[in-house]
Formats: sequence, structure tokens, C-alpha cells
Amino acid sequence: MSDAAPEWAIAHWLNTHAPITLASLRGRAVLAVAFQMLCPGCVSQGLPQAQRARAMFAEGDLAVIGLHTVFEHHEAQGSAAALSAFLHEYRIHFPVGIDAQDAHGPITMRAYGMRGTPTTLLYDRAGRLRLHEFGHVEDMRLGAAIMAVLGDGRATAGGGGGGDGEAAAEVCRPEGCT
Amino acid sequence: MSDAAPEWAIAHWLNTHAPITLASLRGRAVLAVAFQMLCPGCVSQGLPQAQRARAMFAEGDLAVIGLHTVFEHHEAQGSAAALSAFLHEYRIHFPVGIDAQDAHGPITMRAYGMRGTPTTLLYDRAGRLRLHEFGHVEDMRLGAAIMAVLGDGRATAGGGGGGDGEAAAEVCRPEGCT
Amino acid sequence: MSDAAPEWAIAHWLNTHAPITLASLRGRAVLAVAFQMLCPGCVSQGLPQAQRARAMFAEGDLAVIGLHTVFEHHEAQGSAAALSAFLHEYRIHFPVGIDAQDAHGPITMRAYGMRGTPTTLLYDRAGRLRLHEFGHVEDMRLGAAIMAVLGDGRATAGGGGGGDGEAAAEVCRPEGCT
Amino acid sequence: MSDAAPEWAIAHWLNTHAPITLASLRGRAVLAVAFQMLCPGCVSQGLPQAQRARAMFAEGDLAVIGLHTVFEHHEAQGSAAALSAFLHEYRIHFPVGIDAQDAHGPITMRAYGMRGTPTTLLYDRAGRLRLHEFGHVEDMRLGAAIMAVLGDGRATAGGGGGGDGEAAAEVCRPEGCT
Repeated sequence: MSDAAPEWAIAHWLNTHAPITLASLRGRAVLAVAFQMLCPGCVSQGLPQAQRARAMFAEGDLAVIGLHTVFEHHEAQGSAAALSAFLHEYRIHFPVGIDAQDAHGPITMRAYGMRGTPTTLLYDRAGRLRLHEFGHVEDMRLGAAIMAVLGDGRATAGGGGGGDGEAAAEVCRPEGCT
Repeated sequence: MSDAAPEWAIAHWLNTHAPITLASLRGRAVLAVAFQMLCPGCVSQGLPQAQRARAMFAEGDLAVIGLHTVFEHHEAQGSAAALSAFLHEYRIHFPVGIDAQDAHGPITMRAYGMRGTPTTLLYDRAGRLRLHEFGHVEDMRLGAAIMAVLGDGRATAGGGGGGDGEAAAEVCRPEGCT
Repeated sequence: MSDAAPEWAIAHWLNTHAPITLASLRGRAVLAVAFQMLCPGCVSQGLPQAQRARAMFAEGDLAVIGLHTVFEHHEAQGSAAALSAFLHEYRIHFPVGIDAQDAHGPITMRAYGMRGTPTTLLYDRAGRLRLHEFGHVEDMRLGAAIMAVLGDGRATAGGGGGGDGEAAAEVCRPEGCT
Repeated sequence: MSDAAPEWAIAHWLNTHAPITLASLRGRAVLAVAFQMLCPGCVSQGLPQAQRARAMFAEGDLAVIGLHTVFEHHEAQGSAAALSAFLHEYRIHFPVGIDAQDAHGPITMRAYGMRGTPTTLLYDRAGRLRLHEFGHVEDMRLGAAIMAVLGDGRATAGGGGGGDGEAAAEVCRPEGCT
């Protein structure tokens, strides 16, 4: 769990003014969902879950990123225009990067050894990969995993349990916690 | 967040060999779901969610408890026999305590100022109430809240960030974490 | 398909001012759902479906009836008070009859050879049983089956295709049919 | 309800060996779902419903057709290649026609005055439009509407109620009907 994960290789970004690197997100946890716009499981589960995570956690704590890792049907889903239309219709507002292709296919997908889409990647505040899973991750488990890396990062940064208390407070409503 | 929460007042326990007190669970986080067997939102959401939490977290880390807080329809749902049949049919295997009644209604419900059912209570390892919410809590948020109190308890117990790392590991699968 | 189906043996009716017999519903199609209040599949699927059918078809065309066929947990779900509380909480407003018991169990359930709950019974306007199915019936199939017996009854009663045209019109909205 | 509905204007067919006309389907009821491959409501509801209808009714009684009525994002969803990839991934096997475009947009969509996608069209065996609805149609209502036009068509064709009895039999299982 020592080293940072491979940097993403992105050909084009949507929903962001400037390119994003994994390194530039250091200090925040990162949830990255690798998907294809014509992948039914991505559309019905992976992307709505990423939207729920975006709505639930603070931007300053958790970055949510889409990775468009096209490994089939390039003519249908390989263009930025097609992806842009898709993101518009599905109201996906978080940044999405198009995985760069070389002669062997999408580079980031290969660098991480992804089995397919959707794949969920979760990084801690130090950029270390803490969860890598193909297929559906239950919401409760993903929520727990996100909080685990948030708490861990805070402990690392803050040197004590105090940060964890704050992390807990984030998920309590005012009337619900003592 | 300093003091322990009120002890439960239980008239009768099901799914356990011996009575359970909140105090006796010190050292573990506790998820308690207050419900009524004829409450539609409890049956469709609160109890299935508690079952998912039971399946997802280790027994040694998280206790899951049902509190049958009957404040209406006592003739239909007030008996241990009725509740026992319900638990059998819905395959609920975690311990359930029947909230003791006095002249004003269910005692534990009143002690906590619950607004109705379902109500979700989440306690940390020191028995402090960390989440108290009426109605549905999204799975992702509950998963995050559980992990927050687990991590917090470990930090309290262990004095450092190391425990949090273990908490994170719990929600990763072997092939999924580095 | 010639003879009328067995009459129901009902010990007690709820949600109706006067007892109901199958014979008294002649001229209307009848959807009867046999259920138990502690049967999870009845609560999650059978009864909500009956409510949807009640909302979708005209009362004058389709009667919707519940049959409480208690064959287990009599102490928990055998009383009219328990059932009444259940119907209140689940907002079930159509008439429900409690299947009369003899030494061998619920009489109507046995007369029809039901395998368990939920069981869906659909009768045509002449009181003939046209569908008898244990477990879940898909909404589309049940909608088709109801319309089939409605159309059939109308053809029987009216002697021509005209009635069928009206049946079709029932499921079109004004702006949607030519 | 006297005249046949407008013929479809199709630029290209998928999932069929030869072009299909509405006229050529005379004698069968027809369910046509107008959709766009990037329309969320089409993907989550309209198309799965059409697949359920395809599975539930006999091919000889009901034709199920998709109409790809592209009125936006032409660069992303306007090509046959893009649509073909979509149909492959979503396992849609019924015939789909691409609505022909003129300078004002998709011709069939305009001829029918469709408000958007998804739009459900249901024709009887004589090619008359019997249901035209924008947005989601509940499964129970669509099942009823399909059976209504099947029964109606049979009455028209067969001149009596006998055909309706057959229509009813289609939705009963052997053990379930008397």
C-alpha cells in the first residue's frame, strides 16, 4: 500500500475547464468510475452510483471522476461528441476523461489491468489505490470504503483521532448526533 | 458527544439466548433499528437495510439490533408470538428486543425522543450515539457512517492511524487493494 | 370452462358494509388475491399489484378482493384485529374476506387447491375461474388477462365486437387513440 | 377509428432481413416504440418494456418494432453503426427502423405528431392506431391495451366471441384455467 497508483492517460477531458491528473488531486480521496457509454451495467448502476457519491460527499474531500475506457464499438462511442451528448442526456456533471488509445486499446484500462466496465477505483488522499473492483459494488460497501479512505487520510494528515470525529460528523445531520 | 446514550428498556428479547444491554456491547459499534412489524417503511426499507449491514460488517465490529417500539396496534403487533412469527417469515436473525411499555407507551422510544418508525440509531464503540435519524437513510450514507464510527472507535482504542488502515482493508477485496 | 367456480367460505369481511359472495359479483370480472399478512411475497408484490389493478380498472368492470387464507402463525395473523391493523397501515381499501377455518385449515384455500400465498384468481363476468396462479404474475400478463376476461364477458353479454371496442377504449387516453 | 394510420418512413432497418411496412403487418397487432439510444427514459423503461412484450405475446399475434426517431444529437446517435452497437449491447433483437430525416427532422415522428421519446404506438390487426402515448405506460395498462386490440382484431376477423376466448387462453397457464 506504499506507492501511488499509475497516472491516468487521458486523450480528452469533458466537464472540466482544465485537464486533471491523479497527482493534482492529492489531498482528496478520489472515486474514479471506468465506463463505456453503451455498457448497460454502467448506465444502470455504475454511473448513477457515482452521481450519488458526488451528491453525498463534499467536493473538498472526495473527487469523483469518470474514465471513458472504450474497448469496443469505437465508431459508436469513441468520439468526444458522442460522449458529450451522452453526458448531457444523463445529466452527468463530474469530469470525465477519455482514456487514450494506442495500438493495443485504452492505455489506462490496461495499466490498471481492468477486466471490463464498470470498474470502480478508489484512491486515498495520498493517491494510493485502495479499492479496485469490476462490476457492481453495493452502495453500503462503497460508502464504507469512501469513509475509510477519508478517515485514513485525515489521520495521516492530522495525526490523531480528531479528524475521524469530523469525518463521522459529516454523515450525521445536526439533529441526529450527540 | 461525551456521554453514553440511554440504556435500552427491553421487556423481552428474541433471536438471542440472553438479554443484551447497550453497555454489554461496549467495544463494538452498534446499529439499532427501531421498527414496528406493521410499519410499511420498516418492512420495505429499514429492516432489509439492517440485514444488509449485518451481512456486510463483521459481528466483532458491528452489532445489529432490532428494537420493536410498538406505539400503535398493540393487539396486532404487541405480542412476542406475533413478532416471532414476523421475524421467522422475514428471515431476520439478528437480536430483537421488545421495547418495554409503561402507561405512556414504549419507554426506550420516549427516552430517545424518537419521532416514529423506522428510526436508525448508530453508536460508536464507546456507546455514544452518533447518528439518530427518522425515516430512510441511504445505504451509501449509512455505510459511511458505520465506517466513521468504526474508524473512530479504533483510533480511540489504538491511539493512531493504524487502526483506520485496517478498517479500510475490511471493505476491500484481496484482488482489489494494493 | 363451463361451470362456475366454488363459492368462497368467509368467516369475516373487512372493508365492506355487507358480506360479499362470488355469485353476487356476476356481471363483473373478479380479481381475488389470496394472501397472508406476514407473507413477504404478498406484502411486496401480490397486494401492491392488486392495488394497481384496483386503480386501473373501473369498479363496475372489475371487482378486486383479498382473501386472507391463514394456514400458519394463526396466533399472529389469525385475528380480525390483526388483519384490520395491517390493512390500515398498508392502505388497502378493497374488501378482504378472512377464509373460514375448519379442522383441516382454511376452507376456500383447500377448495381451490391453492399451493400457498400469494395466489391470484381471476374470474370472468360469468363467475368462471380463468386464471389461477401461485406466486408472482407479471403486471403485463395480469393486465392482459384482465382485459381478456373483460372482453370475453362483454362479447358474451353483448353478442358482438362492439363491446370489445369499448374495452379497448378504456385503456386509451383521449389524446392517444384515433 | 376508421382509417389506417400513416405508414412509417424508414431510412434503414436493423434486426431484419427485409424492410418492414406497417401495411405488411396487417393481421397482427403491432407495438411500436419510438426511442432514441441516448434517451434515459427509453433505455430504462421504454425498451425493456418492449422486450417484455416481445417475450410475453406470440409473434404471430403481436409484432414489436422499434422506431429510432433521432431529433437531437445526430452526430452521436444518427448513424446505423451507433444504433447497431447499442442494440447489440442492450440485447434488443426485435426489428428497429431508423426514422427517415428530411430538412425538418424525422419524418415519421412528425407524421404522428409525437411529442418526444419514448412514445408508445399500438395498432390493431387492421393497422389502426389504438394507443399513442408519450412517456411511460404502466405494464398492466399496456398488457390490457395489447389484449384489447388482440381481442378486437379477432372479433373483427372471426366475427364472434370465440376468438376472445382464445385470446384469454393465451395468458393462462394450463394448470391455471378451467
